[in-house]
Amino acid sequence: MPKEYPCTEPSMLHCFQPTGSLVAWYAKLLCDTVVPFQEAVLNDRVEGVPPSHAVRNFRNAAALLRGDTDRRGSFYGAVFQDSDVAKWIEAAAYSLLIKPDKALEQRLDDLCDLIAAAQEPDGYLNTHYTLNCPENKFTNLLEGHELYCSGHMMEAAAALYETTGSRKLLDIMCRNADLLYQRFITEGAPGYPGHPEVELALMRLWRASGEERYRELAEHFINVRGVDPDFYIKEAAQRSWKIWGNDPANREYQQSHLPVREQPDAVGHAVRAVYLYSAMADIAAVTGDISLKQACIRLFESIAHRRMYITGGIGSTVIGEAFTADYDLPNDTVYAETCASIGLIFFASRMLQLERNGRYADVMERAFYNTVLAGIELDGRKFFYVNPLEVIPGVSGVIPTHRHDLPQRPGWFGCACCPPNAARLLASAARYIWDRADGILYANLFVEGKLTLPETEILTETAYPFGDTVRFTILSGSTRMAIRIPAFSARNYAVSAPGEYRDGYYYLDARAGDVIELRLDMSPRINRTNTRAAANSGRGAVTVGPVVYCAEEADNSGELFGFTLQSGSLRIIPQTPAQIGGFDAAADSLGTVYTVCAQGSTLVQDDPDALYFSEGFREEAGSLKLIPYFMWGNRGLNRMRIWFPVR
Amino acid sequence: MPKEYPCTEPSMLHCFQPTGSLVAWYAKLLCDTVVPFQEAVLNDRVEGVPPSHAVRNFRNAAALLRGDTDRRGSFYGAVFQDSDVAKWIEAAAYSLLIKPDKALEQRLDDLCDLIAAAQEPDGYLNTHYTLNCPENKFTNLLEGHELYCSGHMMEAAAALYETTGSRKLLDIMCRNADLLYQRFITEGAPGYPGHPEVELALMRLWRASGEERYRELAEHFINVRGVDPDFYIKEAAQRSWKIWGNDPANREYQQSHLPVREQPDAVGHAVRAVYLYSAMADIAAVTGDISLKQACIRLFESIAHRRMYITGGIGSTVIGEAFTADYDLPNDTVYAETCASIGLIFFASRMLQLERNGRYADVMERAFYNTVLAGIELDGRKFFYVNPLEVIPGVSGVIPTHRHDLPQRPGWFGCACCPPNAARLLASAARYIWDRADGILYANLFVEGKLTLPETEILTETAYPFGDTVRFTILSGSTRMAIRIPAFSARNYAVSAPGEYRDGYYYLDARAGDVIELRLDMSPRINRTNTRAAANSGRGAVTVGPVVYCAEEADNSGELFGFTLQSGSLRIIPQTPAQIGGFDAAADSLGTVYTVCAQGSTLVQDDPDALYFSEGFREEAGSLKLIPYFMWGNRGLNRMRIWFPVR
Repeated sequence: MPKEYPCTEPSMLHCFQPTGSLVAWYAKLLCDTVVPFQEAVLNDRVEGVPPSHAVRNFRNAAALLRGDTDRRGSFYGAVFQDSDVAKWIEAAAYSLLIKPDKALEQRLDDLCDLIAAAQEPDGYLNTHYTLNCPENKFTNLLEGHELYCSGHMMEAAAALYETTGSRKLLDIMCRNADLLYQRFITEGAPGYPGHPEVELALMRLWRASGEERYRELAEHFINVRGVDPDFYIKEAAQRSWKIWGNDPANREYQQSHLPVREQPDAVGHAVRAVYLYSAMADIAAVTGDISLKQACIRLFESIAHRRMYITGGIGSTVIGEAFTADYDLPNDTVYAETCASIGLIFFASRMLQLERNGRYADVMERAFYNTVLAGIELDGRKFFYVNPLEVIPGVSGVIPTHRHDLPQRPGWFGCACCPPNAARLLASAARYIWDRADGILYANLFVEGKLTLPETEILTETAYPFGDTVRFTILSGSTRMAIRIPAFSARNYAVSAPGEYRDGYYYLDARAGDVIELRLDMSPRINRTNTRAAANSGRGAVTVGPVVYCAEEADNSGELFGFTLQSGSLRIIPQTPAQIGGFDAAADSLGTVYTVCAQGSTLVQDDPDALYFSEGFREEAGSLKLIPYFMWGNRGLNRMRIWFPVR
Repeated sequence: MPKEYPCTEPSMLHCFQPTGSLVAWYAKLLCDTVVPFQEAVLNDRVEGVPPSHAVRNFRNAAALLRGDTDRRGSFYGAVFQDSDVAKWIEAAAYSLLIKPDKALEQRLDDLCDLIAAAQEPDGYLNTHYTLNCPENKFTNLLEGHELYCSGHMMEAAAALYETTGSRKLLDIMCRNADLLYQRFITEGAPGYPGHPEVELALMRLWRASGEERYRELAEHFINVRGVDPDFYIKEAAQRSWKIWGNDPANREYQQSHLPVREQPDAVGHAVRAVYLYSAMADIAAVTGDISLKQACIRLFESIAHRRMYITGGIGSTVIGEAFTADYDLPNDTVYAETCASIGLIFFASRMLQLERNGRYADVMERAFYNTVLAGIELDGRKFFYVNPLEVIPGVSGVIPTHRHDLPQRPGWFGCACCPPNAARLLASAARYIWDRADGILYANLFVEGKLTLPETEILTETAYPFGDTVRFTILSGSTRMAIRIPAFSARNYAVSAPGEYRDGYYYLDARAGDVIELRLDMSPRINRTNTRAAANSGRGAVTVGPVVYCAEEADNSGELFGFTLQSGSLRIIPQTPAQIGGFDAAADSLGTVYTVCAQGSTLVQDDPDALYFSEGFREEAGSLKLIPYFMWGNRGLNRMRIWFPVR
């Protein structure tokens, strides 16, 4: 007997679909390639890709639960393998709004039936524990990823309900959430998730279901985190099994070193951190909790002012996939996991609910157009887990300190968290493009398409980020509107309608018939970094608007690492991938992008084999061709650099 | 009944003692402080320094062997703890030539008695195995360090014999070498040392004892190495114990991946590598083995042309304390172990026996004046194991990727290989300053003092490396002489006597009464690095002669990492440590050194907290004060940099 859920308000997902420019191109890639490809991988149907076994795990758990010992197979994969399925369901659900597909919808529904069959009678859902070690349930919150997997499946449930109206998975996950509530609230079991995720997911489940206990449980996990910083040490002392053997005393790794409201800096595993902060911001926005809001602002600034790459990447080291220290931002040994930048977008978008300040959208945009898009090969079939800002063939991906910094995207990963995570973000881009609160419509990102709301219809036309104009035509109705003015353009922008600027937004009243034109400063720039950031002192990175540029050997003869940029010498050259050269045919449909030509000089040494020399060299004038960073690594193994010496 | 040993020719150790300049200052520091301090540490008599237990291990082994169960204690320390004693004996032996000390000589003799008592009847000598696990002898050549410890004690024996004439330790180590010969040659046991050292030591023992079998055994270890690259895998399969669990399949780590004559590049653990290559060069020089010589030249070039820091440091990564790849030379995550540069000096000095080319002495000098001296605090009581080229407080020594790069010298180490290794090198500097072969006297390094040979007496007067003139006064006799012309001065030098230049040496005939003045180009320079070395592209490092310069915050207000050097702006300012400021009184006796004042500019950002910015900054003219790199880290925790952006 299915429950009744409150009808959620139509979200931006229903009201806006990208129809042009970069985001639409990726949305099409998502529907045509990424979602079907990942479905095939999860079902072990792609040759050459190691088996995922993720769907089969559910099948095996279902067989076990119905006592079908003939069909009972074993669990295979990481302890969080279930979450790959969850993230794919979420992405596929969103894709149905972009490209309706009855067959896919049916397969999703069948998958929900399978998940229901893999759920234990008390609501427990995790194929690893059901199949492998039911006796270990909830005994290793540090490493166990049970709450993490629950969280991702809750997000999938909310997405499926929101996009298709299907309550099947929502019912399943409400039963699961009820079990968690019973355990952690009613029975008062101690602890909180080693990998935050369920907190933000419970908030989504609360919104989808209207069940207040889910919000209560999310707040509970936030409130108890780090209050007993020794919880994981005590937990470890009570069990005799482990997964990787994470050190429970390494409290910062999982952000359990202090109560969350007292945490001064973004530390530890970067994905865990931003998932946690996302939930904190969401809860603070809902509850009005001032100390939680202050902690969110402090942690956001820790990231955005001191611990974030220019690409919006976060996590400076592979050791713990973690933040390190202020201004420690090495380019070639960086981690900058795709998932971490996705999580940063989650965090930043929730900060906008807390505080209407364009700086949050700036970070969202930086992470999106650079690290997130760079995570995806232009053919939609290969993905980066780690996103280096500098690649040295023979070093990157090879020597021990750089083994994680692959110079080319591999097909899939044993730990396949990033590909479906990128897919679900891309498929739900509308959520980050537009926002509405307190009667104000916020234009956060600039993407071509038609927005249809009860109160107004707005057509956006733009080639942004490869064009400087965004034209909003109000087709019907009226609204108070806030157009984000990106920080890069704050000193030089124009809006064709009267309004007022405040905290990164231009506020105005829009009525049917209005054509509001926003002009942004898309001149190419050389960015410098804070002088405390040792790795890039004396160097500059080229940007055009929100897009970070890099140079690859494919476009530049000679020694890429011998080039010095000349200030004030940049010129934009619009080109298609075919004109740039070397890209596969699939990429040509990307259309015209900006490339940048920079003047400068190349160091030429008389003896090319000399290692150190104070004479016998000259600077030869030359030019450098730069392409958007998100396009790198599509043309085989070669050097890549973002930060060049500058003079 | 002691054996008779052939009287070895008086070596340079007996014929030359530094009397002035930097090397003499360090020699005095060695005798007055380093040798007594290390003796106290090895005997567990220094408060605040963790117990070494190294001498006590010998006492305990001796008690066990004589059946004195009351006094039998346990072994404590690393498996190679014995080698700390050996290296100290070697250093102390040399120090007796610099500063005769009957009491020390007696204590050394007593220590030899103790070592004799800790030697097993068959010649076996290793307190770890004797005390802890006699059943494990020779079953783990990969990690066991038995041959390594034997090697260091053989070197100590040769040094003690050479400096004092005492044959006590020589007898002990000949018995030990006989046991090794019996096992590996007579009985044909397979294998070779996981940590090379015994090969070069056996060559020294051969020279001291005249026993050909020791040379044969050294050659054997060289010849079999890597011929069966699976030896360590097979060895590991036959035992059930391990020390650290080194992966026997990681063949490059211990240079067992290929027969030594076929190894193309310097790879693996850097100390192991250069100890191995030192033995190879020594053997090639003695035997005239062409393929071995070619391998040595190839491996030397691999280091000197592609894998060496400007400081003469080697080993780019802490992971395996190892070489990585060509041109991978990060400044802040570098390993550059002091011992590795000492080993590089051993290798380079032996290459000079193979090929009279100044480039080997250039590398020797580079490693000596920079990494080796930087390894020692100016008070002689603290030491660097790892020698970073850039230090960032809060990052260096703190975050996981930089934990090994300590920003200040600690008192001692659990693994105390470097301090006594630096001591034995400093104490035997004469060996690297002068050399004699085929009737030619080679002046390799320039140090004040009097050389007394049977055929000639020469007085050297110089303030080098803080002066541009080296004056050789021939007090008596005559000799064919080859004065090294360092590469930095090859295009601009003067010698006051007729002669001819060849391969980095100026050859001339010197007679009593001659005063030969060498003038070198000691102008300060900005060095660039090969453009393939990504870390330092667009950067420059200041040198004066062989000395590399660095800047510390202690001498420079403002943001050190915001400074850009201006080419052609350098000026030498001679100063004493007291004039520089901030150094302890002990350092004042160092006398006048060159500091360098460089002009340039500092990036000043309007918003000091901005992380990335393309406007709102200016370049302010300013100057930078640089000090010799070997003096860094003596004035508390602060930033340090060698490679600055340059324009």
